[in-house]
Amino acid sequence: MLDMRINGARLRATLDEMAAIGSTPAGGCNRQALTDEDRRGRDRFVEWARDAQCLTRVDEVGNIYARWPGRRNAAAPVLIGSHLDTQITGGRFDGVYGVLAGLEVLRTLGDRGLVPERPIELVSWTNEEGCRFAPAMLGSGVVAGVFDIAYAYGRTDRDGRSFGEELARIGYRGSAPVRPIEYAAAFEAHIEQGPILEASGSTLAGVTGRQGAYWRDGGLPGQPGQAGPTPMESRRDPWRAAAPIMEGAYALAAALAPWGRATIGDVKIQPGSRNTVPDRLVLSFDLRHPEPASLDAMVAKFRALVASNAARARVEAAIDTVWYMPPTRFDPGLVDLVERSAAGLGFRHERIVSGAGHDSLYVARFAPTAMIFVPCRDGLSHNEAEYARPEDLDAGADVLLRAVWAAAQA
Amino acid sequence: MLDMRINGARLRATLDEMAAIGSTPAGGCNRQALTDEDRRGRDRFVEWARDAQCLTRVDEVGNIYARWPGRRNAAAPVLIGSHLDTQITGGRFDGVYGVLAGLEVLRTLGDRGLVPERPIELVSWTNEEGCRFAPAMLGSGVVAGVFDIAYAYGRTDRDGRSFGEELARIGYRGSAPVRPIEYAAAFEAHIEQGPILEASGSTLAGVTGRQGAYWRDGGLPGQPGQAGPTPMESRRDPWRAAAPIMEGAYALAAALAPWGRATIGDVKIQPGSRNTVPDRLVLSFDLRHPEPASLDAMVAKFRALVASNAARARVEAAIDTVWYMPPTRFDPGLVDLVERSAAGLGFRHERIVSGAGHDSLYVARFAPTAMIFVPCRDGLSHNEAEYARPEDLDAGADVLLRAVWAAAQA
Repeated sequence: MLDMRINGARLRATLDEMAAIGSTPAGGCNRQALTDEDRRGRDRFVEWARDAQCLTRVDEVGNIYARWPGRRNAAAPVLIGSHLDTQITGGRFDGVYGVLAGLEVLRTLGDRGLVPERPIELVSWTNEEGCRFAPAMLGSGVVAGVFDIAYAYGRTDRDGRSFGEELARIGYRGSAPVRPIEYAAAFEAHIEQGPILEASGSTLAGVTGRQGAYWRDGGLPGQPGQAGPTPMESRRDPWRAAAPIMEGAYALAAALAPWGRATIGDVKIQPGSRNTVPDRLVLSFDLRHPEPASLDAMVAKFRALVASNAARARVEAAIDTVWYMPPTRFDPGLVDLVERSAAGLGFRHERIVSGAGHDSLYVARFAPTAMIFVPCRDGLSHNEAEYARPEDLDAGADVLLRAVWAAAQA
Repeated sequence: MLDMRINGARLRATLDEMAAIGSTPAGGCNRQALTDEDRRGRDRFVEWARDAQCLTRVDEVGNIYARWPGRRNAAAPVLIGSHLDTQITGGRFDGVYGVLAGLEVLRTLGDRGLVPERPIELVSWTNEEGCRFAPAMLGSGVVAGVFDIAYAYGRTDRDGRSFGEELARIGYRGSAPVRPIEYAAAFEAHIEQGPILEASGSTLAGVTGRQGAYWRDGGLPGQPGQAGPTPMESRRDPWRAAAPIMEGAYALAAALAPWGRATIGDVKIQPGSRNTVPDRLVLSFDLRHPEPASLDAMVAKFRALVASNAARARVEAAIDTVWYMPPTRFDPGLVDLVERSAAGLGFRHERIVSGAGHDSLYVARFAPTAMIFVPCRDGLSHNEAEYARPEDLDAGADVLLRAVWAAAQA
């Protein structure tokens, strides 16, 4: 087993073939969930899985499973999964790499006629991207019990077509029930979608979990005033609170470096007239950290920051949590296994925290889970220029193979 | 002369009668320039001026002059002026008070049969507000040579009707040439349109001039980045420059208290997505001070503030002047005369700097000029709720009478 490697040329050829389905002139992919392009991609994947001697099934929400049998077929399987759907102007690797690296793992076992102790299931989750049918990660979310199936079927795209109808139309409204199966372990390989590995020069990372995030939105009401006549000292100018709150939010993130994050993505201004003190600002703050205690401390300090600066500026601040996503911690034993697999193959590796959403966040609710990240150029993703180097793609698939095999032998 | 006072009841009745022309249900006025309401207001004003034994004339741009003769009719007259047009949802006092207080001055001289050394001319300027035909202060601006008459005639409202046609239609395209006459002094009484007098409890103010203003607009380009995956230290987040620039701008205004002003009226954000570092901010800064040297120093420091914070945040800042209005200084001798007149009548008074635009800013280009401000409730103006107390209106007219008489005797 220790000398076993995936077939990089075959992996890349498979990636190329999938990239041709829904390809865009700029070199990306548009294979949104439940479109004809998605159907063609799914059909091709099912063919490949059958060619690799896997048993395939499709569940009620359209997730496609390819099963490689084990010696103990009643034992909890090992899961490998990601997604084949893309953004509108998406790339060739986001999600796709994880599914096709998993396929390459199963093909490699087939090449050698290797049968692990546990069965291995490769899954392509439905509608991870969420750009056509919100929310994202719908297929894995239904399996994890986050959403029920009726909710999923009822989602509509902007033309009013429902998820359920479109799933049936493309022939992937399957019959397998969506009850979660017990899995011994679950893995997902993915491009990083960030710049860390490229900057550090590592070949891959074991992903320890995902940042939690607070979205805190709020209004800072001011008092209208003309730029000329209104004395500074009698103004109630919401910027006088907002500017130091912003600076304070960045300081909170810096104090929790390298994993603290503060982002001010949107601010709305009323009336937005150049010579008028704003009546009102509406700000959105995105605060993140992977450790629950640190994240909560960050938010508590942020709350105090808002209160003190609002008082100082004599404005009423109401900046409240509108969404909270708790941090996700992947299984430490499986993260170790990923790292040992990488070390055993001689790859430079590190641990990182995911900033983006992945099916594995929902999978982690019903199975011990870990992810493997490989570098992508310029941290670009959700972008037609998305690119990962062949040697990194091969390395990630080799580490996936080793980790999956070890888990399936346990 | 020292015991002479205006007739407050008559002044207020005249204000009420004018307020009825174009009155709004909420108690304000809609008497936009060159509308039928403006014509009715003008007609009434001309009647009143003739009843007060004044000679009237209308110039080519529709400014209406009412002349009270002096003993030396070839001497440079003293000018009193303001405007009768209003905003769409305007008040009863903005402009109107200055014209009708001037009328009350002439009526009071008439009551007593007083003939000053110099003639006195009362003018109602055309289209001060600029809300129907931009720019504002068009009538006084043509007389001051800021605009030529063809430019004024060519201005159109949003229905495409021209200023020249509308002026003719309402019968106020006069024959008097618009060449500026030499005036010995010019005065304008006006509500403050700010909160200073109400807060200080003064009855009126001698206005020393108008703030100069720089409008500096600019873009701060950032680098797109996702809120989760992008490490803080690799971001180029334009808010990291904008927030301290804002705080610095307020500090610059505070260092020049009480007349320094900094206003951030509008900020545009691209893409404005809550979990994305902005690609670009576009900010508008309004910086003001009444002293040219202080204003220029303020802007020089602002420029340095932008440069240093942009460098620190690793963004390219280009925040440039898009408009500059130099400070206006009224005639110190006439400001003194206003203050002496107020003091002689026992009124609590102070000096303030105007933040808003007035016809007097253009008049000051061809005549020694001063303004008299009276308090208005809550600093409100350009608002149907605009209100000034009768005793303050009377006081302002009494001071106007004294100052005009003294200037006309000089």
